[in-house]
Amino acid sequence: MSYNTFGHAFRFTTWGESHGPAIGAVVDGCPPGIAITETDLQPFLDQRRPGTSRFTTQRQEPDQVRILSGVFEGRTTGTPISLMIDNVDQRSKDYSDVAKAYRPGHADYAYDAKYGFRDYRGGGRSSARETASRVAAGAVARLVIPEVTITAWVEAIGGDAIDPANFDAAEIGRNPFFCPDPVAAARWEGLVDTARKAGSSLGAVIGCAATGVPAGWGAPLYAKLDAELAAACMGINAVKGVEIGDGFTAATLRGEDNADAMRPGDNGPAFLANHAGGIAGGIATGQPITLRVAFKPTASILTPVETIDRDGAATEIMTKGRHDPCVGIRGAPVVAAMVALVLADHKLMHRAQVG
Amino acid sequence: MSYNTFGHAFRFTTWGESHGPAIGAVVDGCPPGIAITETDLQPFLDQRRPGTSRFTTQRQEPDQVRILSGVFEGRTTGTPISLMIDNVDQRSKDYSDVAKAYRPGHADYAYDAKYGFRDYRGGGRSSARETASRVAAGAVARLVIPEVTITAWVEAIGGDAIDPANFDAAEIGRNPFFCPDPVAAARWEGLVDTARKAGSSLGAVIGCAATGVPAGWGAPLYAKLDAELAAACMGINAVKGVEIGDGFTAATLRGEDNADAMRPGDNGPAFLANHAGGIAGGIATGQPITLRVAFKPTASILTPVETIDRDGAATEIMTKGRHDPCVGIRGAPVVAAMVALVLADHKLMHRAQVG
Amino acid sequence: MSYNTFGHAFRFTTWGESHGPAIGAVVDGCPPGIAITETDLQPFLDQRRPGTSRFTTQRQEPDQVRILSGVFEGRTTGTPISLMIDNVDQRSKDYSDVAKAYRPGHADYAYDAKYGFRDYRGGGRSSARETASRVAAGAVARLVIPEVTITAWVEAIGGDAIDPANFDAAEIGRNPFFCPDPVAAARWEGLVDTARKAGSSLGAVIGCAATGVPAGWGAPLYAKLDAELAAACMGINAVKGVEIGDGFTAATLRGEDNADAMRPGDNGPAFLANHAGGIAGGIATGQPITLRVAFKPTASILTPVETIDRDGAATEIMTKGRHDPCVGIRGAPVVAAMVALVLADHKLMHRAQVG
Amino acid sequence: MSYNTFGHAFRFTTWGESHGPAIGAVVDGCPPGIAITETDLQPFLDQRRPGTSRFTTQRQEPDQVRILSGVFEGRTTGTPISLMIDNVDQRSKDYSDVAKAYRPGHADYAYDAKYGFRDYRGGGRSSARETASRVAAGAVARLVIPEVTITAWVEAIGGDAIDPANFDAAEIGRNPFFCPDPVAAARWEGLVDTARKAGSSLGAVIGCAATGVPAGWGAPLYAKLDAELAAACMGINAVKGVEIGDGFTAATLRGEDNADAMRPGDNGPAFLANHAGGIAGGIATGQPITLRVAFKPTASILTPVETIDRDGAATEIMTKGRHDPCVGIRGAPVVAAMVALVLADHKLMHRAQVG
Repeated sequence: MSYNTFGHAFRFTTWGESHGPAIGAVVDGCPPGIAITETDLQPFLDQRRPGTSRFTTQRQEPDQVRILSGVFEGRTTGTPISLMIDNVDQRSKDYSDVAKAYRPGHADYAYDAKYGFRDYRGGGRSSARETASRVAAGAVARLVIPEVTITAWVEAIGGDAIDPANFDAAEIGRNPFFCPDPVAAARWEGLVDTARKAGSSLGAVIGCAATGVPAGWGAPLYAKLDAELAAACMGINAVKGVEIGDGFTAATLRGEDNADAMRPGDNGPAFLANHAGGIAGGIATGQPITLRVAFKPTASILTPVETIDRDGAATEIMTKGRHDPCVGIRGAPVVAAMVALVLADHKLMHRAQVG
Repeated sequence: MSYNTFGHAFRFTTWGESHGPAIGAVVDGCPPGIAITETDLQPFLDQRRPGTSRFTTQRQEPDQVRILSGVFEGRTTGTPISLMIDNVDQRSKDYSDVAKAYRPGHADYAYDAKYGFRDYRGGGRSSARETASRVAAGAVARLVIPEVTITAWVEAIGGDAIDPANFDAAEIGRNPFFCPDPVAAARWEGLVDTARKAGSSLGAVIGCAATGVPAGWGAPLYAKLDAELAAACMGINAVKGVEIGDGFTAATLRGEDNADAMRPGDNGPAFLANHAGGIAGGIATGQPITLRVAFKPTASILTPVETIDRDGAATEIMTKGRHDPCVGIRGAPVVAAMVALVLADHKLMHRAQVG
Repeated sequence: MSYNTFGHAFRFTTWGESHGPAIGAVVDGCPPGIAITETDLQPFLDQRRPGTSRFTTQRQEPDQVRILSGVFEGRTTGTPISLMIDNVDQRSKDYSDVAKAYRPGHADYAYDAKYGFRDYRGGGRSSARETASRVAAGAVARLVIPEVTITAWVEAIGGDAIDPANFDAAEIGRNPFFCPDPVAAARWEGLVDTARKAGSSLGAVIGCAATGVPAGWGAPLYAKLDAELAAACMGINAVKGVEIGDGFTAATLRGEDNADAMRPGDNGPAFLANHAGGIAGGIATGQPITLRVAFKPTASILTPVETIDRDGAATEIMTKGRHDPCVGIRGAPVVAAMVALVLADHKLMHRAQVG
Repeated sequence: MSYNTFGHAFRFTTWGESHGPAIGAVVDGCPPGIAITETDLQPFLDQRRPGTSRFTTQRQEPDQVRILSGVFEGRTTGTPISLMIDNVDQRSKDYSDVAKAYRPGHADYAYDAKYGFRDYRGGGRSSARETASRVAAGAVARLVIPEVTITAWVEAIGGDAIDPANFDAAEIGRNPFFCPDPVAAARWEGLVDTARKAGSSLGAVIGCAATGVPAGWGAPLYAKLDAELAAACMGINAVKGVEIGDGFTAATLRGEDNADAMRPGDNGPAFLANHAGGIAGGIATGQPITLRVAFKPTASILTPVETIDRDGAATEIMTKGRHDPCVGIRGAPVVAAMVALVLADHKLMHRAQVG
């Protein structure tokens, strides 16, 4: 029993491997009558696609998304929207070592333990390439929630964080790091270059904020908005931690300091703080939803690591092929997509119950 | 569309409010033939139940769990197991203020925004009392996974952390804090007492480890083991952050330092480290599954906080009633229960697909 | 992996066995703010409950339904509604024969084959007693769809059908057979009495119509309204066939005779016929939804039948205990409840997608 | 909230419209390690595909199925299997009348009522063309249940039934009607020809039997094997009725006549009859699973029928384009596919719970 579907009322199913002919997503439950063309989706794919700077993998994928169903005369019909992205730049011969031995930190061993064998080419289904399908589906989701604005950025690379005082959302699109702090962006060039040349890799932290989410979205108790955001983000390749609002810092605060006090406002309460990250009891409060997501360093590195082969014998592995020196960077548009998918789902779930 | 069910193959549904006549859970999908009585479940309820020390709420609830179905002659039959726990110590009159105004940091405002009104008595459905149902269901789940041992403990209160060098699992049950470090436990007495007497509250971090999970459990890509653990834990009342393995620390490591190198072992690989927390690609690696969960401080405090009433007018609120000075403490058995529930589900999901 | 939950946006989960302490249902996803008390539900339970005439089982169950959660100050809160019905008139000693041997036509053998053993008292989970939970949940569902009127009746017993020319909905509640034809009702007294005294049993056909369903409800392609009605009704104990609209008769018609021609009407089309039973392409057309459901004769009979015991040896069985001579009769309120549950679910699903 | 996914542990999602570029299915949960190539699937597609005789629509579709994911080196990997079938012979201009007015008996009006507009070309998503995706997915399902043999046939056309005494399974593949009775097959040539030339259409009844299903598969109470077969079959285009075993005839029998008596057998009981159609209490008994499915006559006919247009004005419609004179004929391989899909799912569900 595997699960390749996410969501309740607005759902998507992804399929495809890194080195198969294509990857794709089927989006189900989209409301009818929404204007949509492939050009609405492509910009989001372009943000995530590889090969656009020396700081990402050099695999050249145009990531052109095609809509195969669910749209008629430029509008969604309410039937499943099938999205497909061709794989064009596979180099499966790079993976002969990976076929035989397990990359520490990668899913190779776990897949073999589960399924008995695996498609080792480019990581198969466990490749971050699959996240292109999420981004395509997420682009559809954004059209379902025009009232919401989602922004994601890189907050730290290899432990080197931005200065919040420098935060400028307009900067995010101006550098290859989705970095809102131009000073940090400049530093990161050297940092990532050094790691890449050393055959190493770096972790990263992504920040994300969604504004315009109406108070009331959310589905307690077992599809709480924060629980689903946690699942959506923890399920992204290489993610090891998720925080909502103040996250682990909240665990160090006293109750009166963590309380988001309220005053009368024009539309519902005017909150004096947002420690909660816009969610209470699993339900949106109307404040910005804020989260942070930790990406581990890319597991495929050119540095040799002690491991075992498929027969259990000792060996070393050094991953050839083309890889991101910091997979977290391209995680920014993926986190944004997952947040959009969760919010679109919760918008529809909310109106199912409350009308 | 609300969701009060969790799980795929092994599922549970909870119901009930803080001040209703009872709360309960229906466990569905439990394998048949498992020996079970109420005395197998009660010890887990007793760990979580309130009123056992001055460091928890003084509400006196015996939390006696009854099995109403699904068991015949001491064994599970494969049909739904209905578990019920009576509420006996409600004091709804304490909540007249909460009825009128919103506690900052609590779900009061969000529930009203969603549903138009709410059962304000004791927090209604949003009360941590509901977690007793999770613990009861989790106790059933543990019987489904006898190969797994789950331990949860408090790792920090109010920012004061245990010393890992002092970690002794045997200590966890010997103090009112589920604290594995006797030195920290002694300090926390004063810390929590001070907060309680000041009408304040404290956050906490829970640590949890599950050993004995076979390599292969997990269901990529959208029911990944780590994603579901994240959802399970982030959905617990007051939780704001979840880490698997090294979590946010992994984001500061280099690839070669984060790699869990492998050597030939007796049963599969012998790992030299466990940065991954026992999960790769959403699948168990056979190493201990480790996670950390951040609880914010209790929102219901005796310190007055600025807020608004149901009509939107400015007011102050100070929560009378009986509350935990640190709701995270009793979170330890709840986290353990949620981990058990996720693992039982994934055991069954794994054998559905792989046999 | 068992499934004791039905529905998508409006869901219910049932639990309980014939001879356990109680049975119940948890209704999830109910919209908030609906006025509800136990007296709104009880009349539906009373229709189905046994012991009200000599034509049903003589087990005396008051079937008093209690609401344990999800309602505050007389209105639904949007949280799970837990419904419980005590079992009071169990006589488990009647079942010593059933414990040892399999009743042909009953689920005894199949349950043993699946689970290895079974709760044989009164049929355990496979008892028609479980349908009381469905009726309770269905009574909640009716409150969610006040625009819809659902009527169910017995159309034939033992092959003896009503005369459509005599159909009078007002008669349904006036006789112990839910029979809309007073002439047939009079005949059935003798028919059922004779079967009962002979230690035999009879099958029945239930008819049902739902008027007021707005055109547009339905969820193609794999939660079509007709597919879900078929699942809902085929899943009732003893049901072996379901027809929508003309059903099997439609298979004998020519296209032009089966077409429900349309003329301009006041609110959408005025249909000239309703061969389709109010559903096309899985979506409601706005016409009355009509269906027919076939119940086999009760399997528990006082006539000896050749069978095997749990060890596989040849034996005979004659079911003592108290049983309905025609379980289909009490199927009428159960079919109505299931139709209500499907329609409430589809109302919410429709507004999730279409608003 | 639409649903285009079917199944629990073995699931499939379909997408695509009659006149879009392609249609497809994503199969999720397939066990790993099963040998599979496109040539294993194609014969089932060929059975269903149109244009192979004058008794089906003349639309020429090769229905070549491609596997885009989930298979590596000729074996399933346990990841989603994406199946795609190109549409090559669309003639959308035939549908200008359908764009403007509603075909009685078709889903045109209902789709407009639900979604506000529709892809009218060839019926869009409501076209029987979608069933090719089901057949492709069903062909995968068959590989998951090699212990089961599924046979489907046409039992009656336009009310003219086969003679059970003539039943010869080997005949099914020898005529264009999936008819097991060569005498009936000869009669049906004239019957269907006459209807076709008259611009009319005919209904049909499909019979199906699945042998080799082990006793114990099934998932009471709300995913009963018979309930899911009913949903699977009632959800096929044009189906209006489903019977398991004796179906509506069972409603006319007495208890002792409907009982499937048992004697000691070699492997479990030797049943003396199979009125139940191989299912009791929603669980397989080990006997052949038998069902009957009623298809209404094709709604798209060349005979003019009174209707209304999109503006609600009176008009007449006569469906040009290419249509099956009896859509039920090609329903035989579709019913077989749906039965395979349900059984594969229940095999995996059974081993999830029972091991």
